Amino acid sequence: MHLQNEIAQQPAVLQRLLDEAPPAIRTAARAIRDFNPRFVCIAARGTSDNAARYAQYLWGYALRLPVMLATPSLHTLYATPPDLSQALVIGISQSGAAEDVRAVLRDARKQGALTLAITNFDESPLTTSAHHHLPLLAQREFGVAATKTYTAQLMVIAMLTAQLSASDALQSELAALPKLAAATLELSEKIAGWAERYRTMQQLLVLGRGLNYATACEISLKVKELNYIASEGYSEADFRHGPIAVIQPGYPVILVAPPGKTLSTMRAMNAKLHQLQAETLVISSDRTLLEHSTQPLPIPAAPEWLSPIVSVLPGQIFAMQQAVVRSLDIDQPRGLSKVTITH
Amino acid sequence: MHLQNEIAQQPAVLQRLLDEAPPAIRTAARAIRDFNPRFVCIAARGTSDNAARYAQYLWGYALRLPVMLATPSLHTLYATPPDLSQALVIGISQSGAAEDVRAVLRDARKQGALTLAITNFDESPLTTSAHHHLPLLAQREFGVAATKTYTAQLMVIAMLTAQLSASDALQSELAALPKLAAATLELSEKIAGWAERYRTMQQLLVLGRGLNYATACEISLKVKELNYIASEGYSEADFRHGPIAVIQPGYPVILVAPPGKTLSTMRAMNAKLHQLQAETLVISSDRTLLEHSTQPLPIPAAPEWLSPIVSVLPGQIFAMQQAVVRSLDIDQPRGLSKVTITH
Repeated sequence: MHLQNEIAQQPAVLQRLLDEAPPAIRTAARAIRDFNPRFVCIAARGTSDNAARYAQYLWGYALRLPVMLATPSLHTLYATPPDLSQALVIGISQSGAAEDVRAVLRDARKQGALTLAITNFDESPLTTSAHHHLPLLAQREFGVAATKTYTAQLMVIAMLTAQLSASDALQSELAALPKLAAATLELSEKIAGWAERYRTMQQLLVLGRGLNYATACEISLKVKELNYIASEGYSEADFRHGPIAVIQPGYPVILVAPPGKTLSTMRAMNAKLHQLQAETLVISSDRTLLEHSTQPLPIPAAPEWLSPIVSVLPGQIFAMQQAVVRSLDIDQPRGLSKVTITH
Repeated sequence: MHLQNEIAQQPAVLQRLLDEAPPAIRTAARAIRDFNPRFVCIAARGTSDNAARYAQYLWGYALRLPVMLATPSLHTLYATPPDLSQALVIGISQSGAAEDVRAVLRDARKQGALTLAITNFDESPLTTSAHHHLPLLAQREFGVAATKTYTAQLMVIAMLTAQLSASDALQSELAALPKLAAATLELSEKIAGWAERYRTMQQLLVLGRGLNYATACEISLKVKELNYIASEGYSEADFRHGPIAVIQPGYPVILVAPPGKTLSTMRAMNAKLHQLQAETLVISSDRTLLEHSTQPLPIPAAPEWLSPIVSVLPGQIFAMQQAVVRSLDIDQPRGLSKVTITH
């Protein structure tokens, strides 16, 4: 049961990052400040790409830095990369073995960009391609579905944000995260008791907005990887522009809706989905919203900018418990391997 | 039957753009050259967001310009936009009424960015927010599912590319597009003959790579909007990193695989899907690949950079014919309205 253990280890990994990562974070932050990038470009695949989405919203919001997600095929297949010379270019990869992520960093470094690798392996091809390396300190992850390395990626991004903002308030909010994560895991133990209800589910939508758009994409990916069902993550705003047409009575929808600037729009979407008689599973600490869901997934209150690190946890456990009630192999889903090399 | 008419009008709309848009394109290109942006940021929702994806790959490839997709909620809900002062910021919206797309342009213009609106309405809120306006010249689109305005958006992006590259070769390739589009529509008439085969389909995946990642997303969205089924568009590379786990015998997958730099990787994915006994529907002009598909969707050979304007057409018709065999309303899908205003 690697997956279950690795989900449970997350508070400890967050604490380890708080304890051991600051020197590397400070060095990287100094280099970023000196380089003064015009924008950021992040290369990543799969789960790591969802961590990139978190950075895209968090850094736009907290640092006013425009963040683009890379187009790796322009570096590999087309071999005509965009001009990234004035950018901070970051590669995020659990293994550090993703060939196309490495190609983006190699091209960018040649052009004069500042490059940074975020990986769980100190000695990886990606690490050696970059000027700086931030380790995830998550110890080895055996489960093919990434969990602790995902929250560790978010934590590294959050720590870098606090360092670049030079804000004591943000630092102290970070310090409280391991306990919040532990409390969330405890609250999520109840999921095992009702997971069976969704055993026949073959389709799922997961909606988030702003900072938690990343969370929606990541929960959707976990459910899909572990249960082989058609699950899709959407920005609540994009969802309203077309995909909402799929909703019919009983359609299951997870809403990632912690309190903050996106709560009112998520609340309106929850009401709209109830009108359409959808089945809503709501991840939130807002009591009223939880009461108006088909199935509440309560989390503790967290600072908005850190909420994605907390709100993904019940989604990981929901995805795992679905696989359990379906008698699927949670550590080695069919068709997947831990390291995928894309050329 | 608005939808059917509007699909059929596409060659004429492309020709109208070639005939009437050049003065506006030249003015916008001159302004872009003078401004000399460090990067591009595009704000769009739904179908228009897929046009933005085309620009992201095409401009990275042909102009070496890094393109980011905007994060509209940072401009609206969070009210803390990233610094876009050195960017070319483009809003794409069929109606020009998308409030959040307008908010991105308004903030960016205030910061000093160069702004450009691409819409089908000369007098729209978005148009008046931007320094420059490129009209789609598609005449009114009545169908709720956008078709001719999508290919018109791609055409405007392609014409701007040719102008900014100052390339006569690209210009003459553009001139051939209306005929290519007409030939594609003719080839796609056969779809009506076999659409019934997929009448019970409840899930669909659409894969593309590079320039045709946009096409995969757009075809997936059309099928979903018109048929209310769980269809999802993926970059072939991202798909390999996890979502491929969902594939089981008989799973329908559309591969957008015209010849070019992405053909070999798409061919490898097609072979992999056959091993997994998936049902592959292949959009290509490559004969060998078409022969190795469950259901070929042939298109004429087109220059790679323009292939997305051609390769989306059989997808639009497939989506429409599915709705026909399912007796669904193709002009007014449930739950959707033509103009969606996101705050």
